[in-house]
Amino acid sequence: MSDECKKVVIALGGNALQEAGTPATAEAQLQVVNKTCEYLADISCKGYEMAIVHGNGPQVGRIVLSQEIASMAEGDLPAMPFDVCGAMSQGYIGYQIQQSLRDALRNRNRNIPVVTILTQVVVDENDPAFLNPTKPIGPFYSKEDAERLIAEKGYVMKEDAGRGWRRLVASPVPKRITEIDSVKRLWNTTIVITAGGGGVPVVENMDGSLRGIAAVIDKDLAAERLAEDMGTDYLLILTGVNKVAINYKKPDQQELSHITVAQAIKYMEEGHFAPGSMLPKVLAAIKFARRFPGKKAIITSLYKAAEALEGKEGTTITMA
Amino acid sequence: MSDECKKVVIALGGNALQEAGTPATAEAQLQVVNKTCEYLADISCKGYEMAIVHGNGPQVGRIVLSQEIASMAEGDLPAMPFDVCGAMSQGYIGYQIQQSLRDALRNRNRNIPVVTILTQVVVDENDPAFLNPTKPIGPFYSKEDAERLIAEKGYVMKEDAGRGWRRLVASPVPKRITEIDSVKRLWNTTIVITAGGGGVPVVENMDGSLRGIAAVIDKDLAAERLAEDMGTDYLLILTGVNKVAINYKKPDQQELSHITVAQAIKYMEEGHFAPGSMLPKVLAAIKFARRFPGKKAIITSLYKAAEALEGKEGTTITMA
Repeated sequence: MSDECKKVVIALGGNALQEAGTPATAEAQLQVVNKTCEYLADISCKGYEMAIVHGNGPQVGRIVLSQEIASMAEGDLPAMPFDVCGAMSQGYIGYQIQQSLRDALRNRNRNIPVVTILTQVVVDENDPAFLNPTKPIGPFYSKEDAERLIAEKGYVMKEDAGRGWRRLVASPVPKRITEIDSVKRLWNTTIVITAGGGGVPVVENMDGSLRGIAAVIDKDLAAERLAEDMGTDYLLILTGVNKVAINYKKPDQQELSHITVAQAIKYMEEGHFAPGSMLPKVLAAIKFARRFPGKKAIITSLYKAAEALEGKEGTTITMA
Repeated sequence: MSDECKKVVIALGGNALQEAGTPATAEAQLQVVNKTCEYLADISCKGYEMAIVHGNGPQVGRIVLSQEIASMAEGDLPAMPFDVCGAMSQGYIGYQIQQSLRDALRNRNRNIPVVTILTQVVVDENDPAFLNPTKPIGPFYSKEDAERLIAEKGYVMKEDAGRGWRRLVASPVPKRITEIDSVKRLWNTTIVITAGGGGVPVVENMDGSLRGIAAVIDKDLAAERLAEDMGTDYLLILTGVNKVAINYKKPDQQELSHITVAQAIKYMEEGHFAPGSMLPKVLAAIKFARRFPGKKAIITSLYKAAEALEGKEGTTITMA
């Protein structure tokens, strides 16, 4: 590696924050975050400059649900809108990561500041995703309550496999990270946690002012947006498996070590990658590899991340 | 004013976020924040570099309460610990201020980044405040529930004027702002929102790692800590009145335009300043004026803030 630090944006998957089967407490989450930060600190010690983007699905779901339940029980506890719940989840998760990662670095005699930047991400109000909301959020409602919410608040509601009705929100493409200037200023000296949960979604009003909206921005696409803006050397997307596979969980499953953008698109079109799971990760990787021919997008697990950056593990996606 | 920008830490009082008698919704709060940010933007346009510290009392109170109610209703919605609730309130309030202040500055053709840094503030586990917790947080409990919480969780609980039992937490002195390096790096180019609610309170373990605790750090003292660390020209504490007064709300009430530290201490000892209200503001102002003889601490209202910085309004506290 050259004297100059390599730069990497790391997108953390849900398993970096929560373990299946453990309680959804902040204390249990902090235990998982502590383990995660050991791996992140190891990457930092190898000399990489990094920014961290985390998911927030289960966390923001519980925040929304708590508020809905409390607001129904007490009149003076109004539920917060979804954009505010997203900002709250950035506070919650960012706090735990920045505290834990600082300590993991200190244990390695590496006193690098770690800081969470509260991040808004601009989406286009005309994004076609708004015509077809797909992301369920918040509690299950009865048919009557669902119809009332459709009439009163204009929510899009959908019956969910016999469990009741849920609100659906759109998942638009991230266009711009509002706080990118601050991320750039801190980058060289500081590990920045940013665009948590994909960022708080905002749209631009006619006069250029910003307005929070109810939407879910894919955190892998937000991480890709960040990696493009920063011109990083790597986009590292961490998930539950060491390598991307075709024919996943079938007898002829085949793990991929290196694929080109063209191959990735072919596999995608053949339906190898599940929507809402591996597909958005592959899409983000393709976008980055296309934007920077010669640079690498990598999809792997937290445990193989350091090796993957050295080209020894994971799935690397490049232009050619 | 000289070519060099004057630096100011601004501590926002509760009325900068909420109006008495309006609903406690995020939407109503954003309306108040929008008004507040007009005044803050005017100060920025006069050439001051600023950092903003806000309170979070009512907001974190509602977060705690919502979580307690929801956790009693549903087993898989555990209530978050108090430090995490504080981090969530920084996300909520910081998001609104950074969005609103950016827009207010843009309307003045001033494109300065505004960003919230999630902030931990270290307190001393041996701070005498922990021997006498004074800050009530969260819901009211029955005597039976209170006794259970005392036994199970070691909470300090106190009967509150016939309304039930509430948990009390300590209000220790802020010792160190963990993210001060990042605030310093951004300061010259960016308006930083930091130490919201006085900061998320943490203590240092024996090994130097940090641990969140249940405590409330006074936001005026946290702002003073920040102003000391940054060596700002002013500490500007905003509250509901234009000037500090002695014999407040009595026939012989007298508003103060300028007092020395010695006078402030005399008035304090005479009991002119109410604990939990004007007293912590005067204490923070005294601390700053003592630390930097020749610099000014100012206590005034949001509406007079710009004039107060020019010495035409508010109460100025100086060493001599």
